[in-house]
Amino acid sequence: MEPVSRTALITRDAADPLAHVRDLFHMPDDLIYLDGNSLGPLPKRTVERMRQVVQDEWGRMLIRGWTACDWINAPVRIGGKIAQLIGAHPDEVICADSTSVNLFKTLAVALAINLDRRIILSAPDNFPTDLYIAQGLIQHLGSTHELRLVDSERIEEHLNEQVAVLLLTHVNYKTGRMYDLHRLTQQAHACGALTVWDLAHSTGAVPVDVNSAGVDFAVGCGYKYLNGGPGAPAYLFVARRWQPSFVQPLSGWMGHAAPFAFTPVYEPAPGIGRYLCGTPPILSMVALECGVDLALEADVQQVRAKSLALTDLFIHLVEMRCAGYGLELITPRDHAERGSQVSFRHPQGYALMQALIAAGVIGDFRAPDIMRFGFAPLYLRFVDVWDAVDRMLHILEARAWDRDEFRSVKQVT
Amino acid sequence: MEPVSRTALITRDAADPLAHVRDLFHMPDDLIYLDGNSLGPLPKRTVERMRQVVQDEWGRMLIRGWTACDWINAPVRIGGKIAQLIGAHPDEVICADSTSVNLFKTLAVALAINLDRRIILSAPDNFPTDLYIAQGLIQHLGSTHELRLVDSERIEEHLNEQVAVLLLTHVNYKTGRMYDLHRLTQQAHACGALTVWDLAHSTGAVPVDVNSAGVDFAVGCGYKYLNGGPGAPAYLFVARRWQPSFVQPLSGWMGHAAPFAFTPVYEPAPGIGRYLCGTPPILSMVALECGVDLALEADVQQVRAKSLALTDLFIHLVEMRCAGYGLELITPRDHAERGSQVSFRHPQGYALMQALIAAGVIGDFRAPDIMRFGFAPLYLRFVDVWDAVDRMLHILEARAWDRDEFRSVKQVT
Repeated sequence: MEPVSRTALITRDAADPLAHVRDLFHMPDDLIYLDGNSLGPLPKRTVERMRQVVQDEWGRMLIRGWTACDWINAPVRIGGKIAQLIGAHPDEVICADSTSVNLFKTLAVALAINLDRRIILSAPDNFPTDLYIAQGLIQHLGSTHELRLVDSERIEEHLNEQVAVLLLTHVNYKTGRMYDLHRLTQQAHACGALTVWDLAHSTGAVPVDVNSAGVDFAVGCGYKYLNGGPGAPAYLFVARRWQPSFVQPLSGWMGHAAPFAFTPVYEPAPGIGRYLCGTPPILSMVALECGVDLALEADVQQVRAKSLALTDLFIHLVEMRCAGYGLELITPRDHAERGSQVSFRHPQGYALMQALIAAGVIGDFRAPDIMRFGFAPLYLRFVDVWDAVDRMLHILEARAWDRDEFRSVKQVT
Repeated sequence: MEPVSRTALITRDAADPLAHVRDLFHMPDDLIYLDGNSLGPLPKRTVERMRQVVQDEWGRMLIRGWTACDWINAPVRIGGKIAQLIGAHPDEVICADSTSVNLFKTLAVALAINLDRRIILSAPDNFPTDLYIAQGLIQHLGSTHELRLVDSERIEEHLNEQVAVLLLTHVNYKTGRMYDLHRLTQQAHACGALTVWDLAHSTGAVPVDVNSAGVDFAVGCGYKYLNGGPGAPAYLFVARRWQPSFVQPLSGWMGHAAPFAFTPVYEPAPGIGRYLCGTPPILSMVALECGVDLALEADVQQVRAKSLALTDLFIHLVEMRCAGYGLELITPRDHAERGSQVSFRHPQGYALMQALIAAGVIGDFRAPDIMRFGFAPLYLRFVDVWDAVDRMLHILEARAWDRDEFRSVKQVT
């Protein structure tokens, strides 16, 4: 890469086809926000929409809002929009519950389909809730199944005719490493295994095409690159071929074929609707819809191109300007294997991240020594990358992280 | 009951110790809202609090809001508040997911405790999602259990040593009939059965004291008498004695003993926290907290006294003024058996309710012929009861319900 200057990056921002999108977000002054992979920022449109749903819809329409304001269709409507971001048909995605709850539903159905197989295959560095939900499900089913965790590099050699489900997160939350979703899905299918993909760190940040890959089930999260607000509802994808014949275990009334007939026997809705359970949290869903609408307005190829340019630039600047300070890149350099984040190891990673946060560069830390930086192309500028590295360099030069106050802060994703 | 006049009721409102609470809600003009048992109205304080959580917390604090704004403790904090409304210890209630999802968790644990028993006992007129969740759970467990539905009047004679769990809704959603929670819980325990009570139509409207009754598990809903907004998150109660030894199957990361240690093996939080699953929907939770705070400010005995006075008055006025029009009361006259709603059967109940709604009296309809009217003491006036009956009488006299437009409206709770 050629020498880079702050001035050159300001010029580059001016030519960025996505530059205008930043203005659609509330971005606090003097903050460089590299944590949109934990919680995306507030879209400006969400402010007015939330006022509207609270005051005009709930406040004035009361119970009538379920029909008059179409709250009742929010899960299907928002799901249909998210479908466009992941290469699914609108009737294959529904917005509901949390990612964890949706993992339970989809894993349970996948095990029910592959009834004579006993292994859920995953990797030990998968996001913990994916593993926890698999463990809980297995225990609940009487421990007749096994969660087999094998190193990410060795997934393929462990795919065999005993594997019921391959459960992976497309982009790793710690390293930013991206699996080849197409190849692994095909390899799983080749041995008769089904796939449950967690797209939490993908949707809205990298191109995903579940149907061209033949994915069976997927889940994902609304509060990261979809900018849906803290704890925004999640979504799930079920390929059409698996919808009619199987029923997920959380058979609540919203997934009934006729919820308002109030019949005593559960009869699942004919399509993706059967993956609903209870009454959806409308206020949180409305906020999510604003973020999804905004994501749909951006060209996904432009998003991907800018994401790679931002992460390339960050890697380059850190390695060039912060050389000699013990930072070790753990995110793949190969574009095909990289999501939209960059992670570095550092022996003092925790304190260093706290010092960065104090200096207005928000990333986050993952034990034992990983600093991760998310690069959301919708609102980050190239100059932000420069400034973030600049502040990091000053902290490293001055050993500004070496203070008690940076050693005890609780952190959350 | 003595003769009643509109003027006398206005005087009665002036003497109502809860009269001032109405001013804490946004109540649309000229609307008599008898559907707070479907969706409670908007507390005024919620408007500013929602603006704050969206703009000041999410917008400005971004990811830091999880600690700086204490989002991370919202489930425990709000649960602890709801505990005060149901006679539980603060560490026995947590706010999470939907009522349906919480039914799954608590039922699953109850079956795990009573491992050698095979029957979930309930009534066919229990709220459908309670039955659906039990059915889904049973199917998921390999159909080794049975959901036995017996008439509400005959619950006690079916409690025997085969029953693992008694699953009932305290106040019936259709009839407003209230079970004797203490007596049934004791009778269940006498034969070794556990209890899962659904408090959706109780909490915030009638006194509940789960611990003095010895209840094992309970669930409930935030959007009815807690005025938490459309689809507000739900809550669950687990008696302390059942918390340490059992793990619910939806073992997501938020229920882990150390969620941010990101270890690959699930280890449940020591207390009620293990009943969390995924990341909580903060925006919806914050709205719920406003409603719960408001409910806590009212004296529960005053609430109960006014609830009974309002429902007594409604029954009296309908039976006196609307006599001869085919309305049949299905709510118990006995105070000890009545929740905070009144239901009447009418052969044209559906069209009649639509005509009432068009006339600004919002109740709702439940198939096949039930009109239900909820009486929330926090914001309803005695004069509202008069006016509601007055409008009903005019509709009945003029057969104003007998129009095509009132025969095809979709309705939702």
